[in-house]
Amino acid sequence: MEANQFKDFGKEMIDYVAGYLENIRERRVVPTVEPGYLRPLIPANAPEKPDKWEDVMSDIERVIMPGVTHWHSPRFHAYFPTANSYPAIVADILSGAIACIGFSWIASPACTELEVVMLDWLGKMLDLPKEFLACSGGKGGGVIQGTASEATLVALLGAKARAIDRVKKEHPKMKDADIVSKLVGYTSSQSHSSVERAGLLGGVKLRSLQPDETNRLRGETLENAIKKDLEAGLIPFYAVNTLGTTSSCTFDRLDEIGPVCNEYNVWLHVDAAYAGSAFICPEYRYLMKGIERADSFNFNPHKWLLVNFDCSAMWLKDPSWLVNAFNVDPLYLKHEQQGAAPDYRHWQIPLGRRFRSLKLWFVLRLYGIENLQAHIRKQIELAHYFESLVRSDDRFEITEEVIMGLVCFRLKETNHVNEVLLKRLNGRGVIHLVPSKIRDIYFLRLAICSRYTEKSDIDISWKEVKETANEILA
Amino acid sequence: MEANQFKDFGKEMIDYVAGYLENIRERRVVPTVEPGYLRPLIPANAPEKPDKWEDVMSDIERVIMPGVTHWHSPRFHAYFPTANSYPAIVADILSGAIACIGFSWIASPACTELEVVMLDWLGKMLDLPKEFLACSGGKGGGVIQGTASEATLVALLGAKARAIDRVKKEHPKMKDADIVSKLVGYTSSQSHSSVERAGLLGGVKLRSLQPDETNRLRGETLENAIKKDLEAGLIPFYAVNTLGTTSSCTFDRLDEIGPVCNEYNVWLHVDAAYAGSAFICPEYRYLMKGIERADSFNFNPHKWLLVNFDCSAMWLKDPSWLVNAFNVDPLYLKHEQQGAAPDYRHWQIPLGRRFRSLKLWFVLRLYGIENLQAHIRKQIELAHYFESLVRSDDRFEITEEVIMGLVCFRLKETNHVNEVLLKRLNGRGVIHLVPSKIRDIYFLRLAICSRYTEKSDIDISWKEVKETANEILA
Repeated sequence: MEANQFKDFGKEMIDYVAGYLENIRERRVVPTVEPGYLRPLIPANAPEKPDKWEDVMSDIERVIMPGVTHWHSPRFHAYFPTANSYPAIVADILSGAIACIGFSWIASPACTELEVVMLDWLGKMLDLPKEFLACSGGKGGGVIQGTASEATLVALLGAKARAIDRVKKEHPKMKDADIVSKLVGYTSSQSHSSVERAGLLGGVKLRSLQPDETNRLRGETLENAIKKDLEAGLIPFYAVNTLGTTSSCTFDRLDEIGPVCNEYNVWLHVDAAYAGSAFICPEYRYLMKGIERADSFNFNPHKWLLVNFDCSAMWLKDPSWLVNAFNVDPLYLKHEQQGAAPDYRHWQIPLGRRFRSLKLWFVLRLYGIENLQAHIRKQIELAHYFESLVRSDDRFEITEEVIMGLVCFRLKETNHVNEVLLKRLNGRGVIHLVPSKIRDIYFLRLAICSRYTEKSDIDISWKEVKETANEILA
Repeated sequence: MEANQFKDFGKEMIDYVAGYLENIRERRVVPTVEPGYLRPLIPANAPEKPDKWEDVMSDIERVIMPGVTHWHSPRFHAYFPTANSYPAIVADILSGAIACIGFSWIASPACTELEVVMLDWLGKMLDLPKEFLACSGGKGGGVIQGTASEATLVALLGAKARAIDRVKKEHPKMKDADIVSKLVGYTSSQSHSSVERAGLLGGVKLRSLQPDETNRLRGETLENAIKKDLEAGLIPFYAVNTLGTTSSCTFDRLDEIGPVCNEYNVWLHVDAAYAGSAFICPEYRYLMKGIERADSFNFNPHKWLLVNFDCSAMWLKDPSWLVNAFNVDPLYLKHEQQGAAPDYRHWQIPLGRRFRSLKLWFVLRLYGIENLQAHIRKQIELAHYFESLVRSDDRFEITEEVIMGLVCFRLKETNHVNEVLLKRLNGRGVIHLVPSKIRDIYFLRLAICSRYTEKSDIDISWKEVKETANEILA
């Protein structure tokens, strides 16, 4: 493809994308296709000779769109939001053109340096303690991971390295395998499934602790578990505190958990994947009280801060545990400026990395802090509006305090009736939700996901819920 | 940012990108900036109010470009190529607009299904054994990983799960930790650093075996190591066979290693990160002889097949080892079609994933197999052309057989002289190379990286090398 063709094709795609997003409400939010729908729509083999780009363009509506779940439709209320904005899309065009692999500083200094400064910008927007910021001149700093699941794993691996180092100093004859077999981490039974998975991937025990009756993990629960494990000869080394759980957007008591972790020398990782974006608004920072006790903190601008996936921001007070633990440094990756700037390959699981900070830069500049705050506040307001509609109907109940953009609700009926409600709702195809279950109580989760969502959209979603309930209860 | 602004901004970026790439030769390949260059060029904080997109546009040349290493310049000969093409850039615009997270089939059926079929297309282009292809109806299939390092780790984790399962069946009382402490994997000392790192991340022993005098790992060496470990009571479980090493693009003897792995029930992972793209040309498939013995195979279309990073293609004969080993399946991720199509979240380390198969689809269609083959053949031809220039100068020697697009060469002088040569060459700033060292012999690596590279560019690169050598030897 020549440059001139690219210009035509690229600009046509820009127009298509604007049209897609501005009219996304009109599409059925979840497709009706069955598994295997796509294969018969395209040839069984790649073409020998090039197709025309115009044919590729027209195949988007024929082949792709019938199978797309429209995450950016105001009718999409499942999971949590994933970000999408025009500035981020344009930034990714530039990132795709530069297409450097930023595994070391010299491999593209701008790629590393913009990331260092953007994580400072972002950290300051959240008022993170200066120990996390590179601009403070200490050890700390931020990095863009692909996903929160990788951040959780990276933190666990750092914690593991730190614990092994400490135990070896105390017991020089102890073997690594023996130490690892005694390591134990902690999290709430309400934390994200990727925390459990990080334990499996990292090959360590991870205890799933019971939160209190409001679903928040408490310091006392953690301390009791740690004490019991110490008595049994085990080595507590890692804890994950969730700020905004996936099931119900609940906040563990970081103010209690932090001191316990510090006292017992347990690495504290704070996972605020979804809710962390809200901390750019000062009025929500009470929810991260105690953050200064954490060793690592992570949230996803690619969820709620309008920066397209993948952009998971992670800060570490002391990245050297990671850098040193998995440092493989072949000659072909060495350079003369090593040590003067981070070589981010040591901070993450993969070796390669794209120029992802560009989209953070574009979004922060082209929205400005004020508009990003307004975006967060508006979405929370819309959640409260939906909450008020639910509360106005006696047949329903709200099952969890609404703090962010998620509303957990159910019919005051059996789990089965609520399962039928959800299935019927999703089957109608106007809106899309997923359920969850806490202490055997099944409920529906309605997340405000699209940056296009307006009050009138919430009215439509509520009308759907209400009408479907009418059908079922009739 | 409104849709109309996006259209202006996006189209201006398309023009900028075309201009950047078409004129990339004119830029200094590696920047002259020092660590810390970028911070003073931009404000210390994100703006409160939005900037103008025109200002962001003009900051690209002021802030970013002075610090970019131009991987797509024909003067860039470091590492291995990373892909960049117009069709892939346009596909990523669409991917950014759809911005679905494809962790399960229902989360966006098109995202999963196009990936399944594209990995079949690609697998057929390489003539992979049908056991690896989803279209054969067996267990096997392909997946897009972010990087080869993740593929290596994912394979290792699958191998670990399989080995633990097997040993537990034989010795039901053995504990996981005991089994893991006895696991041992194998690779060549010439394999990529990420293989060693996968061992560190996975918490298992990984032996670095010596290749033969032509730098290829041999079956006999592996078999001897396995036998020795079995005698010592250890459990061989995993081996990595590299096709095209990073240092010198050497091919381990897969035809010998495969049978050994199969005999001893060792999971064989084949890492063809760079060279795998060449297997779309039938004349290079002799290098993957024995591939039918492998359990997993990986190469990076994002290196040499014109699909922008991240697109690392991996095939597994039996993904169930992965799916079952790390399967965490919370209610909010369940759906009714589970089992009828892959839920790719189980195939990878992160939970989230972008719609990456779009760029594979666009590239395969808009180049066609013929043009992709022509691209590979041309780059190999250019490498041979550079080789012939080196051979024409008695002061130089070629240190490794040139098979793909990499030429390893050195002055017939001490390592020190060659180190000075490289430092001087890179310092002049016209071309960029990185070195490597095998058996204490230091050499320079010249990789053909840019899709813009022509014979005249190679003449310029050779002229640089020759003139610099003249200076040093004078």
